[in-house]
Amino acid sequence: MAARRQSCLGIDFGGTNTRWGLVTPDGRITARASHKTNSDAAPAAELERLAGALKAFIKEQDADVCAAGMGICGFIDFEKQNLIVSPNMPAWNDVEVARILGGHLGMPCVFDNDLHMSALGESAYGAAKGVRDFAAINLGTGVGGALFLNGGIHRGARGITGEIGHLPLDPQNGPPCGCGRNGCLEAFVGRDGILELYRFLCDDGGTEPKARGQQELCRLASAGDKFALGAYAMAGEYLGRGLAILANLLNPSLLVIGGGVAKTGGPLLDPARKALKLYALPAVMEDLELKLSRLGDDAGILGAAHAARLMRD
Amino acid sequence: MAARRQSCLGIDFGGTNTRWGLVTPDGRITARASHKTNSDAAPAAELERLAGALKAFIKEQDADVCAAGMGICGFIDFEKQNLIVSPNMPAWNDVEVARILGGHLGMPCVFDNDLHMSALGESAYGAAKGVRDFAAINLGTGVGGALFLNGGIHRGARGITGEIGHLPLDPQNGPPCGCGRNGCLEAFVGRDGILELYRFLCDDGGTEPKARGQQELCRLASAGDKFALGAYAMAGEYLGRGLAILANLLNPSLLVIGGGVAKTGGPLLDPARKALKLYALPAVMEDLELKLSRLGDDAGILGAAHAARLMRD
Repeated sequence: MAARRQSCLGIDFGGTNTRWGLVTPDGRITARASHKTNSDAAPAAELERLAGALKAFIKEQDADVCAAGMGICGFIDFEKQNLIVSPNMPAWNDVEVARILGGHLGMPCVFDNDLHMSALGESAYGAAKGVRDFAAINLGTGVGGALFLNGGIHRGARGITGEIGHLPLDPQNGPPCGCGRNGCLEAFVGRDGILELYRFLCDDGGTEPKARGQQELCRLASAGDKFALGAYAMAGEYLGRGLAILANLLNPSLLVIGGGVAKTGGPLLDPARKALKLYALPAVMEDLELKLSRLGDDAGILGAAHAARLMRD
Repeated sequence: MAARRQSCLGIDFGGTNTRWGLVTPDGRITARASHKTNSDAAPAAELERLAGALKAFIKEQDADVCAAGMGICGFIDFEKQNLIVSPNMPAWNDVEVARILGGHLGMPCVFDNDLHMSALGESAYGAAKGVRDFAAINLGTGVGGALFLNGGIHRGARGITGEIGHLPLDPQNGPPCGCGRNGCLEAFVGRDGILELYRFLCDDGGTEPKARGQQELCRLASAGDKFALGAYAMAGEYLGRGLAILANLLNPSLLVIGGGVAKTGGPLLDPARKALKLYALPAVMEDLELKLSRLGDDAGILGAAHAARLMRD
């Protein structure tokens, strides 16, 4: 029981930066740090470097840490605690991340897909606290999701669940998707997909596009630019259809929306809510709430620390 | 433990006929009977009449029955064992079916949605024996599904799960669906939807439609009629897309296809398999099998008896 009063280390291993924090049992991050990820490094070297940084951090904080958890983007065999492949780390295949990192740190270590960790964070400390069935949707460069069903992460046959970005919404006429198909949800709602919709609408209206990135587009929409608003409205309609599909299959009581693109707010989410209501069965809508992530960028750190605690308890 | 050697009664309560059977612990139906359902009757009267028929059946068989299970089409609060509403039985609202029937029979009784019972049957004795994550899809007048996830029926917030028939596949241009929307999967793949596609193709080809029902259409397809084959090919493409959506979200290891329309076989299922493979993520496809129901019309009786046994054990 002593472990419950100790902090856990939560690590969010990203393709650009790796961030970590000390998390108390009640979900407060009492100290945090980060370093640049070396995405070209071999797994052994990068994990040893990370362990060195973490050990220095723990020493500096004079912290009593009982376990560590880490989220990383990729396909993971959770039971074997094996990273099969990660899009951010091309040299990492079949890596027993938790065993290696835990060995360096001298403490139990658990790792999981980053979206699973974020969903766990929202479940333990955020927008989904106490909710038995929910989906956490991440809107960023890609569009991904994690399913939390019957009180736990749904992993399916090999952990590739919640792939809402690759729902074939308009495979005949839709734009190309990074997965090689056409008209997937991500091709409309991913960062590049929305910008492409915007450029298409500008072109159609005989106007030169003013935004080149997502943040510029978001500012234009806030200022009432009709092409930016039109692009978000179209993307939101597709997002809402995807959410309705998820809802009609799984009857969750909550959808938690997070990620950089979700920060757009109303211009994207109002049309999404409208389409969700239109396409979800009325009986499914009755119990369904849609909320923004409450933990934002800290969901991964908090969820990873929570996973570490669950493993220890 | 004596109960394990006794038979359980499995009941499939349909809108036209109610069928039941004595089921041994190893899943054999040793006796069976049925009667016409009176869909206009009040619940108390119809359940009393059913109990009378079941008691006479048990006496006639001189059977040692330890429990009864019943599947019925409708929205059910499983925990409260309450039938909220059933499309087949317009007068049945908020009916404690299991309590009433069990009271008449003098034995424990459990009831559930009919598709859940069929999926349980396939799980216990059929195509999905021993499979942890699968979906059972029923192709009939409507298109429905049951999700069996992490070793049990997934019920979600209020038991309205697996509504694959109401995935909005082409809401802008698709045909009207019984739910009031357009372009749902059921509008293409339901019995009437396929016939509508067939009539459309005949009309387009300047030909008088030769089939007026699903069985005639199936015979035409077997005989190589190009309009019938074209209709099944289109319906199969939409079915495959719906299955891919389900697979990309849930990563099941098996899809079990059943129901009257599934008996069409190749003309519908070959295009469905092709579309499934096209739209499901390759890593999701790797573990995924598609099988026909092994229990056919008996899945409901066998699943209901299995549910009864689970409750007793």
